[in-house]
Formats: sequence, structure tokens, C-alpha cells
Amino acid sequence: MTQGTLYGVGVGPGDPELMTVKAWRLVSTARVIAYLSANGGESTARDIARTFFPDDATELAIDMPMRIEREHGEKAYDAGAAQIAAHLEAGRDVVMLCEGDPFFYGSFMYLFARLAGKFETVVVPGVSSITASAAAIGRPLAARNEVLKVLPATLAEDRLREELQACESATIIKVGRHLPKLRNILGLLDLTSKSVVIEKATRDEEKITPLADVEGDVLPYFTTILVYTGREPW
Amino acid sequence: MTQGTLYGVGVGPGDPELMTVKAWRLVSTARVIAYLSANGGESTARDIARTFFPDDATELAIDMPMRIEREHGEKAYDAGAAQIAAHLEAGRDVVMLCEGDPFFYGSFMYLFARLAGKFETVVVPGVSSITASAAAIGRPLAARNEVLKVLPATLAEDRLREELQACESATIIKVGRHLPKLRNILGLLDLTSKSVVIEKATRDEEKITPLADVEGDVLPYFTTILVYTGREPW
Repeated sequence: MTQGTLYGVGVGPGDPELMTVKAWRLVSTARVIAYLSANGGESTARDIARTFFPDDATELAIDMPMRIEREHGEKAYDAGAAQIAAHLEAGRDVVMLCEGDPFFYGSFMYLFARLAGKFETVVVPGVSSITASAAAIGRPLAARNEVLKVLPATLAEDRLREELQACESATIIKVGRHLPKLRNILGLLDLTSKSVVIEKATRDEEKITPLADVEGDVLPYFTTILVYTGREPW
Repeated sequence: MTQGTLYGVGVGPGDPELMTVKAWRLVSTARVIAYLSANGGESTARDIARTFFPDDATELAIDMPMRIEREHGEKAYDAGAAQIAAHLEAGRDVVMLCEGDPFFYGSFMYLFARLAGKFETVVVPGVSSITASAAAIGRPLAARNEVLKVLPATLAEDRLREELQACESATIIKVGRHLPKLRNILGLLDLTSKSVVIEKATRDEEKITPLADVEGDVLPYFTTILVYTGREPW
């Protein structure tokens, strides 16, 4: 029997219309649709693509404990890979939904690592949250010979400061509980007025706030801060 | 009379199926479709979206001299903005096609700068060449707390070396005639074996070559080199 193909499909940042035509085609004709589900609950990727699911598609929710230690994460990915492999071995294609782009800080890579050597695997790129955020605030992400850096907020303070000192555009991702540290560094570098906070870009709940106006010390995990020090074209 | 709306629409890296559903909807119902055209010739953005053009759409090719001095570029953008403004003032929406994403190193920002203050303007993000390139070579662009840098090859050698010394993932864009410089820097940093050259990702002419196997000293302008020094998940 011919094995099925695994499709790792980026579904974009949130607005279902920002799925690619290819993602729409694969989802709307899928027999098996997989996604990661945090603590057995919600899946943002599923929410984004849900409107295009065929009525008779089989859904495969892969349970991921949220605040995981490395060892538990490995076990969860092993179990998820085995669930997917069972469908592929039975000749059924599996469409795995990935928020944003599958290879841009995504969890899909852990399943890719376990399955791509054994099964035909196709990665379908998607619109990432960083360009969606730039569109949302109406400011270019980068231009000409500017350096753009993507910096996880989880990095140590020294490293963040060094990287921010030398770049024209930075996108700080996974802000969450790291807001006080970021506020401090950006303030010291005199970048506060050039920093904009974006939550849930392109979704109904999208929220855009200049960093100077943000209150409190914790933001949702998937919040992004765009910092732009380059020469604006106007 | 109500003014028209300007849509800056990312059409993705090359494969027409990697246009978003929103880009497809806007293009397939457009009355006026604009794009930049180099020296009055080809437009890659037009090539990507052409299959979805309505039969009766008006095409607006905005001529850009290729190797331009700054002053000539300014004049060309002024002229292009005036052409678009004429349609908007007459109440017609204009869909401006942008390769990849409009705000990711794109020329759309120069038209945005001239028009967004006067007309309603909507930016539709698209799949960028960097995530499309990662998908093409089957290697994650970045993961966990890795730093990702986008580095234009036009930068000075010192700056490129400094940035490449401190990152887990780099995407070097606009390679073109800068290949000898890049080959030298990547060799000195012992990164040659971790560098992959991608031309025309997701197009029929897509070409993937390990840097060590690339011959000659010049590549097409839109060639990208992906450098990955992070810890792979397998």
C-alpha cells in the first residue's frame, strides 16, 4: 500500500483569509487534520482553519502539556508522531495545521524531525506574525540595507541589549512575562518611543499599543514588540 | 465622490498558490491592478498573480529604472504615486501587487509613504521569501530562543562578520554580485558547510545548492543564503 503524505501547513497569523490558497486547498480536501492542543484545550491553528474543514474529516488533536519540562515534551511529541504515523502507514494523508509558518519558531519541527525521514513530507509556508504585525501598525518591517533581528524575549538581558544596540529593526517575540526586562532595556537604549506592542495581529481581538502606554508587567505569551530605528521613507 | 482604497497586496514568493485567500480575492475582483515594472519590462509580481486577473481589469505598470540613482528613483515613485492617485481620486480602488510581503524590504513602502496620508490604504501581508526558502530546503528557520537575523548582502564586510558571529540563524538577502565577499566571511567563520543557497524559491526554476558547491562569483540579485548554526531538533 502507498503511504500517505504529511503536510505541514502554515495557516498564517489569525485572519482565516490570510491562509494561502494552497493551505485552503489542502485543508478543504483533507481526510485527516492534525494540530497541537495545549492541555487538551484550545488550538489557535484549528480556530483559524476551522471554517474550511470538510464535514467528514478526522480530527487528530495532539495533546501538549503547556509548561513542560523537556522530558515530558519529548514524550508528547513521540506520542503525537506515532498517532500521525499510524494514519500515514494506512495510506491516509495528514494535514498538520501550524499557526503562522511551520518553520518560524514553530512546534511542527519536532514532528518533522520524527517523521520526515520515514514519510513523504511537504512544508507549506505561511504568513508569519512579524510581517502581519508590521502591516497592522502601518510601518515597514525593514528596507534597503537595514538589519532585521528576531529576538525571543526569553534571551538574557545582556544579549538582548547587545543585539538591540546594533540593528535598524527588531521584532521581539514571546513577550509574555518578560515585559519588565524589555521595558528596562528599551528605555536604557532610548528606544521606548520607537517600540509598538501588538497582541493577536489580524484577529478580531487585535490590540496595538505604543510601549510607553502599556500598563502592568505581564502580556500574553504571543505578544510581539516591533522596534524600528531605521530611516523611514517619508 | 468617495475616494478609492489603495491595497498593497503581498503575492508571496513565487508559486501562485502561495498567495493568500485575501490576495486572491482582491486580485480576482480588481478594477485597477498596479505593479512596478523594471525598465518597462517584466514584473515578477504580475507573473505570480496574472492567472487571477479579471479580463476587464486596467493594468497600471509603474516604470522603474533598474540601476537608479536616488534622485531618479524619487522621481519614478512620484510619477507612480500620481498615476495611482488619479484612479483613487476617481473613486476606483487600486490593487498594488508586491512580491513576497509589502513591508519586508519591498518597494511598496515608497508609494505607501506618498499615498497613505491622503487615501485609505490597506496592507495585506504575504508569505516572505525567507520562510519559503526554509520550507524549500526542509530546515527550520529558527526555533526556541534562537536569534534570527536578516542581513542584506550589500552591508559592509565588517558588519556582516560581526552579525554572523553572534546568531543561530541568518538569512542573507540580495546576494547578487556580493557572493565573493560572503563566501570569504562565511569561510573565515567556518560556516560554509552550514550555508545553503536558494534561487527562486517555490518557482518552477527553484534551485538549491550547498554554498560549497556554488561556482562563479555572481548570482541573481534575489538569491538568498540561509545559514543555520542552531541546535537541530533531530
